[in-house]
Amino acid sequence: MADVHLALVHYPVYNKKGEEVVSSITTLDIHDISRICKTYNVSNFFVITPLKAQQALVNRMISHWQTGYGAEYNPTRKQALLKTVVKRSLEDAIDTLEEECGEKPKTVATGAKQNSKSVSFEEIGKEIADPGNILLIFGTGWGLVKGLSEKADFILEPIKGKGEYNHLPVRAAIAIILDRLLSEK
Amino acid sequence: MADVHLALVHYPVYNKKGEEVVSSITTLDIHDISRICKTYNVSNFFVITPLKAQQALVNRMISHWQTGYGAEYNPTRKQALLKTVVKRSLEDAIDTLEEECGEKPKTVATGAKQNSKSVSFEEIGKEIADPGNILLIFGTGWGLVKGLSEKADFILEPIKGKGEYNHLPVRAAIAIILDRLLSEK
Repeated sequence: MADVHLALVHYPVYNKKGEEVVSSITTLDIHDISRICKTYNVSNFFVITPLKAQQALVNRMISHWQTGYGAEYNPTRKQALLKTVVKRSLEDAIDTLEEECGEKPKTVATGAKQNSKSVSFEEIGKEIADPGNILLIFGTGWGLVKGLSEKADFILEPIKGKGEYNHLPVRAAIAIILDRLLSEK
Repeated sequence: MADVHLALVHYPVYNKKGEEVVSSITTLDIHDISRICKTYNVSNFFVITPLKAQQALVNRMISHWQTGYGAEYNPTRKQALLKTVVKRSLEDAIDTLEEECGEKPKTVATGAKQNSKSVSFEEIGKEIADPGNILLIFGTGWGLVKGLSEKADFILEPIKGKGEYNHLPVRAAIAIILDRLLSEK
């Protein structure tokens, strides 16, 4: 079985108007996604932002819950945040994994829209069943820019609920996708 | 197939110390859960709090996105919040459903702990496959008080990820449970 890693990308992503932007860190995302990653035994959770002040914000938050008052107040947060690290770019996260694991991870882009290259949950499930390293990539804001998705080894099909509405918060999409790919059924 | 409804309970729930309390509304919960409910075609999303000021907060938030500036700024929020209603108690929500649907809904309590009465996702899936009305009940804070869970017709088994960590945010638990029970596979 592969080691699964996750990246939450704040740049480059689209805004509401389809422009390429840096989105802001939502600290609650970091907490929620860290807990979800811990639940499904994700190896590393990379928070990607090129902005130094935003990197510092995440690092301050992590250290509050790791070693500050928070560690004592709520140990389940401490545990959840142990694998959460900030990187300035997706390339940096991939390089880190290559150094740690001795090979480049297979990359899987996610998004709310069907793409001609989209593959099924079943297919990604098979990749995960093999040994190796897999990096699941999620975009904040209005999603990963096209160039980034298309550079990935795979693009995962969108989550289909019931009906046409496809505006899940990224936190919810991550919970659902990890559950579909990683839960013990 | 049953109509599925959802209740997010802020009272009576446990706090960190196991005391029975009213938890605070988290406005982001209301947004996230409304979107998740809309994605899976949930019929009604009841936000349960006995506190008048907290009821007013949720109602103000809903009307901002329904008819205020927000409706124009972000129509996907407007759509998501159309079925979101505040009730002062779970009994009130059940009475409303009984009036609307002509029968009491079957109730399903959820939680992070295994209970001797817990039933499987498959079993609840079968209940949903039949016509009727089903109300899924989620607790905020440290979970629904025991008396409330045990009054429900069913208690759903907890989500098992990989390993022992079971501290999912309620937002994430709702996303995963609706996906398991309601997605078109």
